[in-house]
Amino acid sequence: MREAPWPAGIRAIVYGVGEMGSLATRLLVERSVEIVGAVGRSPEKVGRDLGEVTGLGRAIGVPIEADADTVLGRGADIAVVCVGSYLKTMHPHFEVCLANKVNVVTIEEETIFPWSTSPDLSASLDGLAKANGVTLAASGAQDVFWVNLVTTLLGASHRVDSVTGYCCWNVDDYGPEVAGHLLVGQSKKYFDQFVSEHGWPEFVARQTVEAMVSQLGLTPKATRSDVEPVVAKEAVRCQSLGREIAPGEIIGTVDRTRLSTIEGPEFEFRMEGRVYRANEGDQNHWQVSGEPALQLSNEGVPYRFTTCSTVVNRIPDVISAEPGLFSLDRLGPAQYRHCASLA
Amino acid sequence: MREAPWPAGIRAIVYGVGEMGSLATRLLVERSVEIVGAVGRSPEKVGRDLGEVTGLGRAIGVPIEADADTVLGRGADIAVVCVGSYLKTMHPHFEVCLANKVNVVTIEEETIFPWSTSPDLSASLDGLAKANGVTLAASGAQDVFWVNLVTTLLGASHRVDSVTGYCCWNVDDYGPEVAGHLLVGQSKKYFDQFVSEHGWPEFVARQTVEAMVSQLGLTPKATRSDVEPVVAKEAVRCQSLGREIAPGEIIGTVDRTRLSTIEGPEFEFRMEGRVYRANEGDQNHWQVSGEPALQLSNEGVPYRFTTCSTVVNRIPDVISAEPGLFSLDRLGPAQYRHCASLA
Repeated sequence: MREAPWPAGIRAIVYGVGEMGSLATRLLVERSVEIVGAVGRSPEKVGRDLGEVTGLGRAIGVPIEADADTVLGRGADIAVVCVGSYLKTMHPHFEVCLANKVNVVTIEEETIFPWSTSPDLSASLDGLAKANGVTLAASGAQDVFWVNLVTTLLGASHRVDSVTGYCCWNVDDYGPEVAGHLLVGQSKKYFDQFVSEHGWPEFVARQTVEAMVSQLGLTPKATRSDVEPVVAKEAVRCQSLGREIAPGEIIGTVDRTRLSTIEGPEFEFRMEGRVYRANEGDQNHWQVSGEPALQLSNEGVPYRFTTCSTVVNRIPDVISAEPGLFSLDRLGPAQYRHCASLA
Repeated sequence: MREAPWPAGIRAIVYGVGEMGSLATRLLVERSVEIVGAVGRSPEKVGRDLGEVTGLGRAIGVPIEADADTVLGRGADIAVVCVGSYLKTMHPHFEVCLANKVNVVTIEEETIFPWSTSPDLSASLDGLAKANGVTLAASGAQDVFWVNLVTTLLGASHRVDSVTGYCCWNVDDYGPEVAGHLLVGQSKKYFDQFVSEHGWPEFVARQTVEAMVSQLGLTPKATRSDVEPVVAKEAVRCQSLGREIAPGEIIGTVDRTRLSTIEGPEFEFRMEGRVYRANEGDQNHWQVSGEPALQLSNEGVPYRFTTCSTVVNRIPDVISAEPGLFSLDRLGPAQYRHCASLA
C-alpha cells in the first residue's frame, strides 16, 4: 500500500476565527494537521482555546492570541487566513505571515487573481513572498467550480467562441457583514444612489474570469463589470439580518464581468448572491459556444463549505509551490488527497 | 500579445481514415497542423487523397497509403491513430509508430489505463516507447467527462466516501461495428448465452475508474465489472443497422465497474450505450457521497465529436511528455489551446 495521498506532519496556524476559520479548524483537525497557533481579534475570543471557540467541543491546547506577529514568529508550514475579502484591507495580515516566512492560503477572494484590480499591492506581496522564500495563494469554491471545472471542460473544445457562466449563492450563508455589503433590505433607489456615489467593487466575478483567461493563455482586450440589484418579488426572511425583507426591497445583487480577448473568445460570468427562500439551493451553470457547444452544471453546490474545504485541500500545493504570489491560473486544479484520519 | 497557445509547426500522420479519422483530419487542418501522411486499409480509399476521402471537399496533397511502415518511416511529430478499441488488436499499429520514433495519440479506449486489463502488452509498449524516445497515450471524451472533470470536482471534497457515475451515449453515433459489438437487435436469451460463452470485455468503464483511482493516489482492493442488456420497450429504428428493433430486442448495454480501495473510497461507473429515440441526447452525471455531497452534470454532451476533439487537443501534451506509455492518470487535464487559424 502506497503512502496516504495527504501528507503527514503539516504544521498550521489558523488566522481568523470567525465562521470560516472555525470550519477550517475542524477540517484541519480531521486531516491530522497540527495546529500550532491561532490568531483572533475579538476580545471575547482572545485568550480562549481554539477548539472551544470554534465549536470542536473540546480544548486542543491552542490559545487564540491577538498579536499576529508573535504567533507567526514561532513558525509554521502554513497560515490559513480567513479574515476578509479585499487586498486593500487584507494585505497587512498577509505581510505579517510572509515576513515571518510562513506560507499563506486564504479565502480572501481578490487574491485568486489580483494583478489587474490591485497591481501595486500584488507586486509588493509577490516581492515580499519571494524575498522570504514562501508562497501566498487564495482559493475557495471559485477555484473548483468557476475556474478549474470550466477550463477542464474546455479541454474537449475544438473552437471556443464564448464561455458564459451563472452562479447563485445564499447571502444568509455568510452572515450580516455580507448582507450589509450587498445592501440587503435597502430600496432600489438607495442602491442606485450608493453605487453612483461610491462605485461597486469588482467582486470575485472579475477575478474569476481573469484567472480563467490567463490559464488559457489568452490576452484580455476589454473588461467590463457591472452590478444589478435583485429585488424581492415577495416577502422573504433574511436570517442574518434577523428581519423580513419586504417586496420591492433588495435581497441581493448580480455582479457581472464580461471580458473580450485579442485572440477572439469572449467570457461572461454572472454571480448572483441573494437571500434564498426555503428549498432553494446554490447553483452553477456554464455554457460554451463554439464547436462543439458544451454545458456543465452542479446542482446544489455547497459554496460555503467548499470554500473552506478547497482552501484546506490547497495546503500541500501552496507549501510545495515556488515562492511568490501564486494566482489560481498557475496552480493547476485542486486535488482530493485522501487522509487516513478521515475514515 | 503573447504567442498563440496552440503550437505552430506540428507534423502529423492520420492513421485510420474511418469516421473518426475523417473528423480528426478536419480538426487537424483547421488547427494548421501539417498532415504529412495518411494510413488506410480499405481498397476503395487507398491511393486517393486524404482531403477528398475524409470529406474536406478538396485535395490536400496527402495520398492514403496501405503500408504503415513506409508512411511512419518518413517521420512525423505525432500519429493520430483512429482504428479500433482494444490493445489486443491495436498493438501492432502502435508498434509500427513507436518503432519509427513517432509519438502516438489514439482514440483506442483501453490504453487510457491498460495496466490491469492488458499488463503484458502495456509493459511491452511502454518499453518500446521508451527505447525509441516517444510517447503513447490515449484520450477521448472519457478523458474530459469521466476522469478529469470528476477528479477536478473532488478538489472541493473534504472526505470522499463514494463516487458514482452514469453516462449514456448513442450507439447510432458509431456505426454498424459498434451496434454489432453490443448485440443490438438480438434477443435477451441470445445475449445471456453469448456472455456466458464468450465473456464480455471490460470496456471503458473499468479503465475510466482505474485511471481516476490511480490519479487520486488510491489503491484498488477489489474490482467487479458486469454488463446488462438494455431491451427495447417500444420499437425503435437503428440507423446504423438500417432496421427497426422490435420491443423485447436489445438496443444496447449498461457496462458497470465497481471498485473499492484499501483507503476507503468506493467508485462505481455505469456506462449505457443504446440506440436513441428522437430527441434523446448524451448524458453525463456524477455524484459524490461524503462531506460535502457533490454533483456534476453535462447535458447533451456530444461524446462522438469530443472524442475526436480531445484527442487532437492532447497532441501537444503527448509530444512534450516523457517517453513511455502515458495513461490518463499521469497526463493532467486536457487543455484548450486557442489557435489563430480557427477564427
